[in-house]
Order: sequence, then C-alpha cells, then structure tokens
Amino acid sequence: MQLCKIQQPLSRRSFVRMAGLAASLSSVGIFSESQFALAAQAAGASGQKPMSQLQMMKMMMASIPKDAVLINANENPLGPCEAARSAISSVASKGGRYDFAEMMMLMEVFGKQNNVAPEYVAVYGGSSEPLHYSVLTYSGPGHSFVAGNPTYEAGGRAAEIAKAKVIQTPLTSAYAHDVKALAAADPNAGVIYLCNPNNPTGTITSRKDILWLLDNKPKDTMLLVDEAYIHLSDAESVIDQTATRKDIIVLRTFSKIYGMAGIRCGLAVAHPDVLHKLENCGQNPMAITSCIAGRVSLEDTSLIPTRKAYIGEARTETIKFLTDNKYKVIPGSQSNCFMIDTGRNGRQVMAAMAKKKVIIGRTWSIWPNVVRISVGTKEDMAKFRTAFKEVMDAPVTASLEYPAGPTVGFAGSRLS
Amino acid sequence: MQLCKIQQPLSRRSFVRMAGLAASLSSVGIFSESQFALAAQAAGASGQKPMSQLQMMKMMMASIPKDAVLINANENPLGPCEAARSAISSVASKGGRYDFAEMMMLMEVFGKQNNVAPEYVAVYGGSSEPLHYSVLTYSGPGHSFVAGNPTYEAGGRAAEIAKAKVIQTPLTSAYAHDVKALAAADPNAGVIYLCNPNNPTGTITSRKDILWLLDNKPKDTMLLVDEAYIHLSDAESVIDQTATRKDIIVLRTFSKIYGMAGIRCGLAVAHPDVLHKLENCGQNPMAITSCIAGRVSLEDTSLIPTRKAYIGEARTETIKFLTDNKYKVIPGSQSNCFMIDTGRNGRQVMAAMAKKKVIIGRTWSIWPNVVRISVGTKEDMAKFRTAFKEVMDAPVTASLEYPAGPTVGFAGSRLS
Repeated sequence: MQLCKIQQPLSRRSFVRMAGLAASLSSVGIFSESQFALAAQAAGASGQKPMSQLQMMKMMMASIPKDAVLINANENPLGPCEAARSAISSVASKGGRYDFAEMMMLMEVFGKQNNVAPEYVAVYGGSSEPLHYSVLTYSGPGHSFVAGNPTYEAGGRAAEIAKAKVIQTPLTSAYAHDVKALAAADPNAGVIYLCNPNNPTGTITSRKDILWLLDNKPKDTMLLVDEAYIHLSDAESVIDQTATRKDIIVLRTFSKIYGMAGIRCGLAVAHPDVLHKLENCGQNPMAITSCIAGRVSLEDTSLIPTRKAYIGEARTETIKFLTDNKYKVIPGSQSNCFMIDTGRNGRQVMAAMAKKKVIIGRTWSIWPNVVRISVGTKEDMAKFRTAFKEVMDAPVTASLEYPAGPTVGFAGSRLS
Repeated sequence: MQLCKIQQPLSRRSFVRMAGLAASLSSVGIFSESQFALAAQAAGASGQKPMSQLQMMKMMMASIPKDAVLINANENPLGPCEAARSAISSVASKGGRYDFAEMMMLMEVFGKQNNVAPEYVAVYGGSSEPLHYSVLTYSGPGHSFVAGNPTYEAGGRAAEIAKAKVIQTPLTSAYAHDVKALAAADPNAGVIYLCNPNNPTGTITSRKDILWLLDNKPKDTMLLVDEAYIHLSDAESVIDQTATRKDIIVLRTFSKIYGMAGIRCGLAVAHPDVLHKLENCGQNPMAITSCIAGRVSLEDTSLIPTRKAYIGEARTETIKFLTDNKYKVIPGSQSNCFMIDTGRNGRQVMAAMAKKKVIIGRTWSIWPNVVRISVGTKEDMAKFRTAFKEVMDAPVTASLEYPAGPTVGFAGSRLS
C-alpha cells in the first residue's frame, strides 16, 4: 500500500507565507526532536518575522494550554522509572564534584548488556550531540549526507552547516529505508543516516538490509545508525558491528523508552578512533544525574518489556480505531510514533487539533497531508481519538491560510 | 615580586618520558577543568602507552584513595545549595519531557539579575561547550588564538583543533593579564581569551584594563571573557558590554561558587547573532535538573556572600600559613585556587602530596616548579597544610624520575 500521493495545490499567498515561515525558522538553531516539535508549534503564530529561540519558546508556551495532551515530540509520558527518580534525588548532594566514576559505571553496564567493550561507548547529554558531531565530522563539501525521506531532520540540518549536499531517497513500499538507493546515492557520500525504527514513520529496516548496506555502501562512507527508538520495537540492533568496523556509529538515547528526555543522557557506540574524532567537536563532562539515572534504568530489567507492552497497546488501540474509522494510517509502526495521511493539509489538521487541546506532531514536506502522532498514555490517546474524529468530521477549510490566533504549522523539514 | 624564574634542568631520560606522556595524553579528549585535572592525575601512572579516556579514568580512580583530600580540580566541596538539591529531587519525576520552560526561567532570572536581555543568554551544560564552540567558530588558520600564560588550557586545545596558531603572552608583574600584549599579539587574531579571575593564578584583571582591550584589540577579534570564578572575587564583570558590542562573549558557570560541577550548567552571554553562530557547533536541549538548580541557586541571595566569605577565609588562612613558613605563594589570588612556587619540580611535589592522600592541582609548563592548589573546606586545607610542610621538609629527590607506584604528573599544558 502506498499512501500520500495526493498533494493539495497551494495558493500563491499561502505559499509565500509558508516560505517566510520556513526562512524565519531556519534562522534559529533547531537540531533536536524537541526543537523540531517546538518549531512546528511556534511557526503558525510567528508571522514572517525572524525569531530568536527565546521568542520561539515564548510563542510555544503561549500557544499550548496547560492541560493540553502533548503527543508532538515523541516523549515518553511515563517519565524516568522509579529507580532513576530516586537515584537523581540521592545523588544531588554530590553535585559539587565532577564525577567520572558514575560515567564509567554507565559505560560498563551498557557495554556488558550490549556485549561491547566500554571503550566503544561515549556518553553524551542525549543523542543530539553525537548525531550533530558525526555529521559535522564525516560530511562536508564533496561528501554528501544521504538519508531516507521522510526521516528525522537533525542530520540534514547538521549537513547544511557542514556545507554537505543533502541527498534523500524515498522509503520502500513497505516504508523501510531503501538500502539499495542509500548505497547508490553518491559514491563520495560522507554519511549515510539510517534511523531504525524510523522517525517519523515508526517503521523498521531489517538487520539483514543494514548489514547489506554496510557491505555495499562506498567504503569510506560512515554509516550512522540512529537506534533511539529500538527498544520500542522488534528491530534488531547492529551495535555488534562496531566491534569489527570503523565505518559505523550507532546512537542510543535514554529519551525514549527510558523516559529521560528532560534528564539528558545518550550514547554513541563506535570504534574508539571514531569516538575520538567526534571529541574534536566538543566534549563535556557528564552530569552525575544523567549518568546514574541512565545506569539504574539499564539495570531495571522490567523497564523495557513493561513499557514496550504499554506503549504498544496504546499504539495498537489507536491505530485500530483509526483504521476502523477508515482513516489512512502509514502501516508498520513499531515505535512510539506513527503517521496518518489526513487527506488534507496536515498543518491545518495540527491547528484544528490544537484548538481541541491535543498537540500532535509535525508534517514532512514530502508528505504535506501526513501528520506524525506520538504515542502518549492510554488516556492521552483516548482524548486524541475523540478530537481527531471531530476534526476530520468537520468540513475541510477551503483556504490553506492559518486560522487566526495561536496556531501550529511548519513549512516542512529543510531536508526535502 | 616576580617568582618562578628558576627552572630545574631535566635529565634526558626523564625528558623523553615526559614527552611520551604528553603525547599519549594529547591523544585523548581533554577540554574541561575536570579532564585537565584527571589527566594530571593519570599521567604519572600511564607510562608511555596511549590511553583511552576510559583507561585514564580507571587509572585515576586506582591512584586516588577514597579518603583523599581533593583540591585538584577547582571544585566546590560545599556542593549545590539546599534549594538546588531540593529542586533537583522535586523535578526528577518530570524528566520525561523536554522542558523549555525551565530553561527560559533560568535565562530570564539571570538576565534580570545581570541587566541583560534574556535573548543575550544561552544555556549550556557548563561553560566548557561554549568555550570550545567560541574558539572553533572564531579562530582558525590565519586567525590565531591569543591568551595569557599561564591560563586555563581548554581554549588552547580548541585552537589546535581549529588549526589556529596559539600565541601566549606572559602575565604582568602583578599577575594580571597583560592587555597591551594581548591586544598587540596578532592583528589577525581570531580570539583573545581572558579568564578573570585567572585560572590557575586566581588573580584579577581590572575592568578598566578589559575595557581598554575591547577598544584597542583588532576590530574583528572576538574577546572571550571567562568569568567562571568571578563571584569568588571582587573583580568587576564586563557582561554589560555584550549589550552594545558583537565582539565579546562572556562565559559563566554554575560549577564554581554555586557548587554544581557535577550537575552541569553554564551560560554564554553575547549578542544573539553571536550566540546563533555558536549554535552551528552544537546545541542540546538542557536538562531540567540543571536549569532548575541553576535558577534556584541564582535566587538564593545568601549563597554568594556566604560562600565567598567561607572560601576566602580558607584561602587566606592557608596562604598566611604558607607565607609564615616562608613558602612562595603567587600573590593576588581572590579565587578558589592559588599557586605555590615550590622551588623544586612541581610534579614531584604533586606525587609526594598524593602519597599523603592530598591530591593537589597541576603545573603549567611555563612554571614547572609551581603547583595549583584548589581551596577546599577548612578541614581539607588543614590536612593540606600538614602534608605540604612534611613534603617540603623532606629533602629534594635528586632524580626527576617518577617514584614507583601510582603517582601523578603532567608534562604541562599544550598551550606552552
């Protein structure tokens, strides 16, 4: 099943307005999931004036009611596990010291669980930094950045900063990354970025396909595999490949299944020589709160199965409702997000949903009618279902102009 | 008074060994105070083998007894204030969400207290990142990095990565930065770095001198003023200059007087256009623990006077003891560190002190006989005084070789 082929024509006036929004948003630093979500939220209210990040934040806060359902940033509403919360509280008093011991313990526990040597693990405050640094390091003029479409936008932003050409290859008909197209995109590719499960579609690329890509991509190209969402799915990791190759970096984060987006902890796994190169871009002592919360989360053996099941049920229930009601869902998500082809301008749907206090995710310019939905609590998703049906039952607005007042919208990822 | 003119000759064997250590340490990422302190600690035990950061950390942990006095990394033994500890505990449960509201509140409270608009404030996980990013952005081939000597080494490391020439100018006879020499060092300087109070000497450069430097440096040179230690001293900030100029960046951190080195929070203050340029190097959503702890620390009006007095007393007591006992202290420190000219090889003194379970700070290669002492608690400093007198009362070891067993030492900053 291929969806999303119909694109609504844009009036000239709205096109100009959207272009203005895209330009103003591109002038602020947007490199992480939270910032993309924020930008999508703020754009509608911005007009065409350039905005500072502070203005963008203020705009978002003004436009989101305090009791809104937030299913726009692939956050985990369950938050840190109990052990992580306790650990953060108990370690706070030790905060006067730089503490390498906690970071080492995190590296070692992660290494042991994933059968990689701890020297192959670098700890960061989330995975945004190593993603950005990897692209700055390995792509540039003459060494393009290659990625699927749609996919998570941060790598493309970094590539623009690195002055690398951005090449995007459509997903397959099963919404997997098209590894043949990625491998063939550019013989001088600097970086091939592959997010598995993919953000925003939640769809899986098989380990077999990724191993094929490793063996068939240009030799000097770095494969950057973003496994931020892997524990929410049945996808198989390729982290073991780092043991024998210097052309792969695997990213992990504690922001998703571990519910620590606001605590900031993530990992890059690669050969030590590769990790060392990334250090040139920046390297920061880690917060003890992040390290200890990450480690005790890894040690909580019930966390992954329990949360995977809960989020899976919330996703499945919601998708069943949507398909029962004949809405078109992009199939195959195993993650905490999925996409709906609304058959109308996605930004309008976002705005209409926001009026009902349900903040949904953004659109990607390759699919302007398709919105991303993050999976919240079962209660969040019940509110989403009610609001979505009401919005979709209402007639399509003739104009594509933004409604008056605080609205949402984003002219699309700059990756396209 | 000019100290430190006597340098001990090195035997060839020890020179080769030290060169090996310097080379092996330069192959790992060392960009922050904690990492420089760690490297100094680990170097003695490393032999000449290249080390991964993990190996370096393991070595340090093995070489430092658990009950050692740690006065080697300019940490604040008082740790986060009570309000910050409580705030960290109470906010942990909200850690599932990216939270821009806490970051905004920090920017606004800091802005209000310092009379700068919040758009001029960027929040980072400490000041290491904006220091590194500033040097990567504004120095490079043909645009040198200019700094005093001795001074904090991180900027020089970043300059090497940026392939910028590093130019160092000696301090004045009063151990202030020599602003005339800094201004004249290179008409094409990319960055002039000025740490005030200076790390490692704790000495002050007057606001008048810094304003003179701003007006007399090459027009396109960025002045990077590191005010990490300013609240421990009577030095006057130049943060107000950011309001009217695009050629100054001021760094602040919560790692020093606020006691949050392990919590990670810092700020860059500059014109929004400048802050935006730094974003290209990397930009990470902030931890809510860092933001809330930073904000409530700012709001604790008793924190600065109480801690400044306590650390000042501990410093004054210790320096009085040292001068009473005829040891040569570099005069003028108003910070949580000061330096002693030991009249013998500083690395040997470090090693001898470590044997007495007092871990002191490193040497700078311009002054190989001079060690940096961080100011710990009054109890820490009492233990330091006893151990230091014992070490100095013992005869100078004839050879410069490291003693057997876990020792300390670092062949010096690569800035020299």
